[in-house]
Amino acid sequence: MKQGFYLFLIFSVLLSVLFSCDHKTKKDVVSLQSQSQHPSLILTKKGVQDIRAQLGTIPIFDATLAKVKEEVDAEILEGIDVPIPKDFSGGYTHERHKKNFLIMQKAGVLYQILDNDKYALYVKEMLFAYEKLYPTLLIHPQERSYARGKLFWQCLNDSNWLVYVSQAYDCVYDFLTEEERNQLETNLFRPFADYISLENPQFFNRVHNHSTWGNVAVGMIALVMNDDDLLDRALYGMKMDVLDPNQKDNDGGLIRKEGQKVGFLANVDEPFSPDGYYTEGPYYQRYAMYPFLVFAEALQNVKPDIKIFEYNNGVLLKSINTLLNLTDADGEFFPLNDGQKGMSYYSRELVSSVDIGYYYGGHDSSLLSISQLQDEVLLDDTGLAVAIGIRDGLATPFIKKSVAYTDGANGDQGGLGIVRAQGAKNELALVMKYSAQGLSHGHYDKLSFSFYNRGDEVIQDYGLARFVNIQQKGGGNYLKENTTWAKQTIAHNTVIQNETSHFGGDFETGNLNHSDKYLFDVENSNVQIVSATEVNAYPGTQLHRTMALIKDAYFENPILLDIVNVNSETENQYDLPYYYFGQIISSNFKYASETSLTTLGTKNGYQHLWKEAEGKAASGNSQITWFNNNSFYTLSSVVSEKDNLIFASIGANDPNFNLRKDPTFIIRKPKNKNANFVSVLETHGHYSPVSEIATNAFSSIKKLEIAFNTVAYIGIIIENMNKEQKLFIFSLKDASKESKHSININNKDYQWVGPYNYTIIN
Amino acid sequence: MKQGFYLFLIFSVLLSVLFSCDHKTKKDVVSLQSQSQHPSLILTKKGVQDIRAQLGTIPIFDATLAKVKEEVDAEILEGIDVPIPKDFSGGYTHERHKKNFLIMQKAGVLYQILDNDKYALYVKEMLFAYEKLYPTLLIHPQERSYARGKLFWQCLNDSNWLVYVSQAYDCVYDFLTEEERNQLETNLFRPFADYISLENPQFFNRVHNHSTWGNVAVGMIALVMNDDDLLDRALYGMKMDVLDPNQKDNDGGLIRKEGQKVGFLANVDEPFSPDGYYTEGPYYQRYAMYPFLVFAEALQNVKPDIKIFEYNNGVLLKSINTLLNLTDADGEFFPLNDGQKGMSYYSRELVSSVDIGYYYGGHDSSLLSISQLQDEVLLDDTGLAVAIGIRDGLATPFIKKSVAYTDGANGDQGGLGIVRAQGAKNELALVMKYSAQGLSHGHYDKLSFSFYNRGDEVIQDYGLARFVNIQQKGGGNYLKENTTWAKQTIAHNTVIQNETSHFGGDFETGNLNHSDKYLFDVENSNVQIVSATEVNAYPGTQLHRTMALIKDAYFENPILLDIVNVNSETENQYDLPYYYFGQIISSNFKYASETSLTTLGTKNGYQHLWKEAEGKAASGNSQITWFNNNSFYTLSSVVSEKDNLIFASIGANDPNFNLRKDPTFIIRKPKNKNANFVSVLETHGHYSPVSEIATNAFSSIKKLEIAFNTVAYIGIIIENMNKEQKLFIFSLKDASKESKHSININNKDYQWVGPYNYTIIN
Repeated sequence: MKQGFYLFLIFSVLLSVLFSCDHKTKKDVVSLQSQSQHPSLILTKKGVQDIRAQLGTIPIFDATLAKVKEEVDAEILEGIDVPIPKDFSGGYTHERHKKNFLIMQKAGVLYQILDNDKYALYVKEMLFAYEKLYPTLLIHPQERSYARGKLFWQCLNDSNWLVYVSQAYDCVYDFLTEEERNQLETNLFRPFADYISLENPQFFNRVHNHSTWGNVAVGMIALVMNDDDLLDRALYGMKMDVLDPNQKDNDGGLIRKEGQKVGFLANVDEPFSPDGYYTEGPYYQRYAMYPFLVFAEALQNVKPDIKIFEYNNGVLLKSINTLLNLTDADGEFFPLNDGQKGMSYYSRELVSSVDIGYYYGGHDSSLLSISQLQDEVLLDDTGLAVAIGIRDGLATPFIKKSVAYTDGANGDQGGLGIVRAQGAKNELALVMKYSAQGLSHGHYDKLSFSFYNRGDEVIQDYGLARFVNIQQKGGGNYLKENTTWAKQTIAHNTVIQNETSHFGGDFETGNLNHSDKYLFDVENSNVQIVSATEVNAYPGTQLHRTMALIKDAYFENPILLDIVNVNSETENQYDLPYYYFGQIISSNFKYASETSLTTLGTKNGYQHLWKEAEGKAASGNSQITWFNNNSFYTLSSVVSEKDNLIFASIGANDPNFNLRKDPTFIIRKPKNKNANFVSVLETHGHYSPVSEIATNAFSSIKKLEIAFNTVAYIGIIIENMNKEQKLFIFSLKDASKESKHSININNKDYQWVGPYNYTIIN
Repeated sequence: MKQGFYLFLIFSVLLSVLFSCDHKTKKDVVSLQSQSQHPSLILTKKGVQDIRAQLGTIPIFDATLAKVKEEVDAEILEGIDVPIPKDFSGGYTHERHKKNFLIMQKAGVLYQILDNDKYALYVKEMLFAYEKLYPTLLIHPQERSYARGKLFWQCLNDSNWLVYVSQAYDCVYDFLTEEERNQLETNLFRPFADYISLENPQFFNRVHNHSTWGNVAVGMIALVMNDDDLLDRALYGMKMDVLDPNQKDNDGGLIRKEGQKVGFLANVDEPFSPDGYYTEGPYYQRYAMYPFLVFAEALQNVKPDIKIFEYNNGVLLKSINTLLNLTDADGEFFPLNDGQKGMSYYSRELVSSVDIGYYYGGHDSSLLSISQLQDEVLLDDTGLAVAIGIRDGLATPFIKKSVAYTDGANGDQGGLGIVRAQGAKNELALVMKYSAQGLSHGHYDKLSFSFYNRGDEVIQDYGLARFVNIQQKGGGNYLKENTTWAKQTIAHNTVIQNETSHFGGDFETGNLNHSDKYLFDVENSNVQIVSATEVNAYPGTQLHRTMALIKDAYFENPILLDIVNVNSETENQYDLPYYYFGQIISSNFKYASETSLTTLGTKNGYQHLWKEAEGKAASGNSQITWFNNNSFYTLSSVVSEKDNLIFASIGANDPNFNLRKDPTFIIRKPKNKNANFVSVLETHGHYSPVSEIATNAFSSIKKLEIAFNTVAYIGIIIENMNKEQKLFIFSLKDASKESKHSININNKDYQWVGPYNYTIIN
């Protein structure tokens, strides 16, 4: 297998070189203009003049500049170190090379803005250190990657290096002699660009965040060097390569589908939906945003004819807004698929996104308020524009709305529904996922959801099992628990059939399928609904989940109604976990606590759960209340006497303590063809450990009942402590706004228009 | 038993009434002056004039006033509710009556400051509602307390009520007619004061935070009503009562030692050490501060002859500073003994303490900076002074220092050592406890410690097992896990012998004993040492713990060296747990993870720990690194191949989920007479989930070794990654600063003066 792979590789390199040479005469792709001046990519000659003219009058820019200067000055004092590559991420050589490219880019900028030769000299000296080192390097000694780099363990990081260093080179271009430039280009930049492309087609010729970085790296240096062929390679990929059609990367992702287009533009086309949602999820969208936008900015500056910001209906600019909306109240991204928690719009990638989005996207003043929070701007024309906007008081609030995003290049592969509502002192957000698989970073979590209150996770998405760049944890890379736990269905707040993951946990199958939106209706801000179906996760079983965030004056905060209809051709066991955070305060049913703990199952993620207690509810409703970060939460559920109510926590079969020991509550419905999971999640009350006053610490729900259920409808009665009954009826087969409905429940006729009806009935 | 108790009660009431009457003629205690004007307790006529003159010019006072006005106005609109008492804390009637007294006090103040009758009318109306209700009340229906109240389930809360309502009454005194006052005093205030004193001597005639509240309640209303006898009762207790000498309260605390003085002044004398440390610990000190200081203020205003602030060497004012020092960087109290986490100097009790301390304690300008953080002042003369001080820019930083506090009325019952040091970006604090038992709220945790970085707990003290005022959790009262877990030795970071708690977990024995300070030396800010001994916790076994917070240029932050010497007449097993927080990142030894979990033991708290993994270190050192809140921590320990290294977590035998599932690492030394536990805790590095950059994530310690150990000395070598060796020698039997020492270690002579020597040796 490995041998075959290397043969492919060699063959592919040969072919690519041939075709690459062939291109030189064509010029059919981009009409390249001669570049007469530097810098021209990110900083421009005119931009530098403007910046110099404004310095001292633009607080956020001035402050960023001062910070960057302080950082670079300190590095210059420390001296240059270009070590022989050795380590994984987190290790010294990795982190040193990473710091080097970040600092070189900054030093280049300082040279331009401050017109001080010491910064240019520093960049020059380091570039020549790399020029000396690079030709001596074999492939990186760490063998884990499907595309090993030279400076770093993977081509991905080598590409990061080139994206940043291209900018530095652009800034000091005129500072260098032609001879020096030739030396750098011949010994460093061109071989560098060739290595990550020609010699690694499985990395470069692909639609993936990895290849986006690769394409952009090659494209950026192409623009500085004014090299048509390289630019062509960057935009359209290599015309020919030879790849095993089944080859996968080390995260298990398929390298390429047959006939798939490649190159930067294909990477703009395919992973983005028309709404600007990136199929891998927000964490990787954030990661890809920097190369996408910085290269777009460079293209716009050097090759304005391409009109990159209008390409594919302006999806690049749209995606910035989408990404900002995929955050909780603290600006942290929803950790969908493989996403590390805590990543937020304070990251450097989002600083650049916001600035570039503002500058090229029609000066949307709400972006200025995000930039104010970031308290940092790009040191270029875009950052200047933002700084001036903020200085001039133009910032307006960035308001996150309820919104549905489609997934898939054509917007027809399901999507994501975000529903937001304000409570008394709370800010609630529901995220429901009915998207495509999300490529190699996807999780088997069809129709899963997560729920937020202010910046706190109430019902969490576990995220990934990885400690990015913490070397002790598997070199900072994905841990095996990412596969055995984090991707598995039981790790998510959705239905699991017979303790197996969706699509049998098979990536190829998952990748062929997606859920479908049934309804997203937030017109009535008091009853906001997202509803979606999944018919492929378990062949023969149809899942339909409907979640409504309902503002009802009786309740202190909007309540979350969760309805999952399961219809199957066969009898199955169904589990629905809720991964809450915090301390259980009370429950209304009896359960037996385990006196010794065993795992809930043996595979598909179940082997990672300790079963702590199990019980049954006699009353038709189970109710648990928990407390987290000064708020109370109650989950009331319709259950039968047959249902098992399970308390469990993560952490079993975790010999290296790679998992968080978070708790979950699982409703298990034993063997049955069909099942309805119906729950209401209340957010209520407050407790302060300083005043020691607890308010509204109890549920306001007396009873929850399925009053009506056919193939076409489900009717839920929510009875509050005042014995008021509210009926929520939902049409399961007809989501049309115009359809008229009429049904009889408990000898009373209900008539309404549209997919749902929410009404008081007593 | 119960019957006997009631007989005692009745007899005691009779006796007390007799003696109480007897007092009327004596006047030997306090020379009472006739009170001519109201308000006079907290607000004074002159104070009100001053406040009115300054309104609008004193921002923090004005803001507090506006907030209080808004709150009271809202309550007035809601109308008065004085429900029939029924509930535990957390329940409606409890919380309503609590709110009532808080609001009445505030309304009284508003009446005085704003001169608006509506506030006086509101107070009057509510007082008469109570005047109507109170005579109809039997004892409170909830039976849990050893001293049941009438409005609340315990006399303690009834006393809270009277402390606040006395102030309200004082404010509206002149607004009422004499007839109205007589009616209130006859039907409400006097019976109220008698009930919590005469009828509950087991509550009132005691040295305890409960009785402090009771004494002050009676004292406050005495001052308003100008009643000498009541004031005498408050200050000195009832001269005679009949109490079962073995009677305990419902927390297991002994009511009274034989011959013990009682009354308010005894409560100032006994629980405070000369340093102002309150023996129950900071959480209860905070709780008691309000009655202590508000009554002191009232006494100072009405009976200045008593010179209460000079009483017992001015311990009341001293205790304010002590309490402020018993906080972490966020102002949260160290949760020693029974302490609920999160309680802080932002509590209302500390607002009053800081203001009163400033006004009566010589206008210490550093208190103003605490008040600025609190962003709130008392609406009285003291708050006015603070507001003026802040307005005038007089605030200076409140700097928390390394300090040792004695425990015990005479300062001879051990104490507490707080050692603080600054790291690169960290603020470290060590709290070592070698105090007395702490009365009924004490834990069996001799020589335990906790460790803080900034506001984060690094090595935690568990605190109490209680959810104060959260009704679902046992009425908000102490849970049985407070006894079975939180008080037990294994719940703390100290040595446990043979899986039994200190003093066999026996309160009476614990209460008779205390640890002893051996050394507290923080003169050299690079080597700060606290060392203490305990010889009674396990008869026949001597424990000596020495902790040094060492600033060493090689390490990013000060390191914590922890040495425990155990010497016993018998062979025993010794456990030393470290209750860390966060995720295990790595360990240097092999361990086997359990595939099913059982408890670590069956009693003394061990039944609450799940054993997760166990291993042994072959190298002579065990090392674990964990990660919490963006910092790394490494615990390196000297261990032998016989020692068991145990990972465990709390939560077993916890059927109501009353415990937090926090982790611990336990070093277990199997059967031996003597043992030395030697560890170094490093605080190092940083990780940001936004930049994803990990710095200094590895330990800097290569080796830790006991190089020398006799009865008189222990010498520890700390070898860092540069192979530099530092030797810490400690004199175990002679803590004198003047003593000269000379020993030979590895054929090298070491000579020094004083109890320790820290030096580089290679």
